[in-house]
This record gives sequence, structure tokens and C-alpha cells, in this order.
Amino acid sequence: MELLNKHVSIRKFSDKLIDPDLLKSIIYSGTRASTTGNMQLYSVIVTKDTERKQKLLPLHFNQPVAKNAPVLLTFVADFNRFSKWCQYNEAQPGYNNLISFTNAVIDTSLAAQNVCIAAENNGLGICYLGTTAYNAKEHIEVLGLPKLTFPVTTVAIGYPEDTPELTDRIPVEGIIHDEVYQDYDKERINKLYAVKESLESSKAFVAENGKQTLAQVFTDVRYKKADNEFFSAKMLETIKAQGFLAD
Amino acid sequence: MELLNKHVSIRKFSDKLIDPDLLKSIIYSGTRASTTGNMQLYSVIVTKDTERKQKLLPLHFNQPVAKNAPVLLTFVADFNRFSKWCQYNEAQPGYNNLISFTNAVIDTSLAAQNVCIAAENNGLGICYLGTTAYNAKEHIEVLGLPKLTFPVTTVAIGYPEDTPELTDRIPVEGIIHDEVYQDYDKERINKLYAVKESLESSKAFVAENGKQTLAQVFTDVRYKKADNEFFSAKMLETIKAQGFLAD
Repeated sequence: MELLNKHVSIRKFSDKLIDPDLLKSIIYSGTRASTTGNMQLYSVIVTKDTERKQKLLPLHFNQPVAKNAPVLLTFVADFNRFSKWCQYNEAQPGYNNLISFTNAVIDTSLAAQNVCIAAENNGLGICYLGTTAYNAKEHIEVLGLPKLTFPVTTVAIGYPEDTPELTDRIPVEGIIHDEVYQDYDKERINKLYAVKESLESSKAFVAENGKQTLAQVFTDVRYKKADNEFFSAKMLETIKAQGFLAD
Repeated sequence: MELLNKHVSIRKFSDKLIDPDLLKSIIYSGTRASTTGNMQLYSVIVTKDTERKQKLLPLHFNQPVAKNAPVLLTFVADFNRFSKWCQYNEAQPGYNNLISFTNAVIDTSLAAQNVCIAAENNGLGICYLGTTAYNAKEHIEVLGLPKLTFPVTTVAIGYPEDTPELTDRIPVEGIIHDEVYQDYDKERINKLYAVKESLESSKAFVAENGKQTLAQVFTDVRYKKADNEFFSAKMLETIKAQGFLAD
């Protein structure tokens, strides 16, 4: 619990390299996560090579953490391997569809989280790069991903250079619903987000961006509707191109 | 690592109830998982009530584990709460799209896995029910889920009545790719799946179902193309109905 509860994303790594056997044993812990029908619908691409990292860097919008980490682990939803097994064993796979894609995305995420926890338990630090799904198309090219695969997320991993403070979360009561979903009125929302809004870092965010509210920093700067729509259209095309959705 | 590596799904639970404070602290550990832009794109619906469980049971295809568990936790991808926060703070949310849906599904899965690990660390046992996404539409009705939410997965949770053996996995080398994806030829596949195919339980599966290969048990019995297509079409409609994808 302690380990889970003190998790912080690490964005600066030391020069110390990760022992290959340690890396393998951490990824092994990923494979012990629950998986749909024990099909293990994921693959992990290990990027250490400087040139290849250079190609991935713009796909992560040049975030310094991506450059700084000694290793990038790209977690790929993978129905290719399982389908190949079927084909080589006189079985006709039928996994070129949305429910199979979804099962693979969930499997992949659970495995990734186990890898992160195992890494932290071994003194390593991690940072998820959510940019992977945004630029799935280009990841597919750079990493040579075949049909029936889809890059879901990337974990930057290495030995921490610094130890940031624990980040805020809304009170846990705010995400728990007893028996049925209790929708949020203004009063409840204000209460849940009061601490987040009162943080000095939040106030600085609002001021730096010339906004009135913290929410506007999200909607107008960080996660904008126009960007979301652009990347959603691109993603839909990529899911289709990878064979998970008919035109 | 030990905890992660010895994980087994528990399908039989004792009568012992889960202390509400323990349950809350376990869910709190879920909120410490990494989350996209610290938006916490998830909610957890706690089902204890016998009548409501009775309604959920057929949505999990009457799996005994769903009936047997004292608590079901339904993990819901949730952009409703965050969007409400935006609306109440003079900000225009733009999260009714596929990339936002995907971010929420990943956030939700990472939180769920943390909850499972925290649960096991406290002597509880868990079993994921992948059926949730298959019957998302009906879950939305029974749990009263609003637009911009989507039920991703359910965790059955309680004190273990038995301790099953560790299940097989393919060798970890089979999921790791060095720098670029190495596609699988017949020889590599045969090697990776040799242990799985040689298990007594696998052989029994093949025989019971009157099949020639283990792969055929998956394609012809457990995860059939026709079923996948049926549930994929249903899921696509539900994603649209929940406001995450335009028609």
C-alpha cells in the first residue's frame, strides 16, 4: 500500500543504466497481471537505442522526460500474436473487431501498471507518456507494428534524479458511488475540487495562462476541444487501418 | 514483486465481509495510480446490495464468481465529473470524443489494477469480470450511468475461500521486442505456446470440447468471431450513445 500510495511520476533520471535482467524481471511481473481468458493481449517494445529514441521523441511532443529516460517501454495492445497462434493451429481467429481491441487495451493497461509497480519496488522511477495513443500512427511506423496491434501507452523508466512531492487528488469519496451513480451538482463539485484549486501551483497555472479559472487552463490550453477532435479522427483512422474496425 | 508474481484470480469467497474503511482505503490506493493530466477519469460503483447484484448477475453471464463475491466494484471511465467541473467554472469542456474515451479507459484500468494489488496486499482476493464492456449498455441502465461515462471492467472482491494454483503464461521473452516488433513465425509460436498446450488442463479442454487443437477451443467455443462481432456492434452503439463518438 505504502508503495502504491507514495507513487509520483519521475521526469528526471540519473545516468545509471537499468540492468537487463532487472528490466526483464519487471516486465515478467507485468505478465502476471490478470488478462482476458489468459490470452495475454499485449507486447512491450523496449527502446534504448539513441537514434530510435530520437525518432520517438517528436511523437511524444518532445517532452523532456522522453529524452531524459534511459529506457522507453511502449505497451502495445496485441491480437496479432494470439491470432498467429490460432492460424498455425488450424483455428480461424475472429479478433478484427472493437470488443477484441477493447479487451487488448485493458489487458495492456493492467500489465503496464504491474510493470510500473514492480519498477518502483526496485528503486526505479516511471512516468507514463499518454502521447502514444495520440500519435499511434507514427509509433506504428517507427516500431514496425503489424495489423491487429495498437500502441496504447509508453512508460519512461530509469533511476530517479529527484523526488517530486506527492500530487493532489480529489477526495476519494468523490469517485466512489454507493450502488448507483450519484451525479455531481455544483456544490459537490466545488467541494471536491476546492483543494486542487487552492494550490499555489494551480493559481500560478491560471495566472501564467491569463485565465480566470483552473478549469479554463484545461479546456483552453492543455486539453483543447479542437486538439481532441483532431487526434480522435486520427485515432479512428488508425484503429481501422490496424484492422480492428470496419470502414 | 512477490505479491504481483503470485497473483491468482479468486472465484470462491468466504462469508467474511469487507470492512468499509478497508474498502475505502483500497480504492484510495486506486486514486494514487498515474492519471492523464491528473484529471482522474474514473469512478467506482460499489455493489453490495443483493437485489442489485441480482440484476448485474445476468450481465456477467451468470458467472458463479459474480454471485459469490460479497462486493462488486464496477470501474467506470468517467469524463462526466471533469466536464461538470469545467461547466461550473466558466470553461467549455470538449471531451465528447474518442481520444478522451481512450484516455479515460486507460486511467480507469490503471486505477483498477492498483485497487486489486492493494486488495491482495490486505488478504483479499479478486477476479476481473471482462463481461462489463460486453454488456456496457445494460450496466449503464442498472447503475444509472450518465453520458460521458462507460463501464470498463468489474472486479469481484472478497476474502478467498480457496487458493488456486498459479496459471500459466507464455515465456516473458515472447512478449518483449527489442527496438522494433519482431513478428512471429510458426516455429517461434510453437515454442512460446508449447507449455500451455501441454498442460493437462489444456488437453482436457480440447477433449471436452471435441476439438483438435487448444486454439480451436478459443476460436470455436470461448471467443468466437460471431460473438465478437455481435458485441462489437453493440459496444460501438453504446460508445456513441454515451456521447464519445459522433454518428
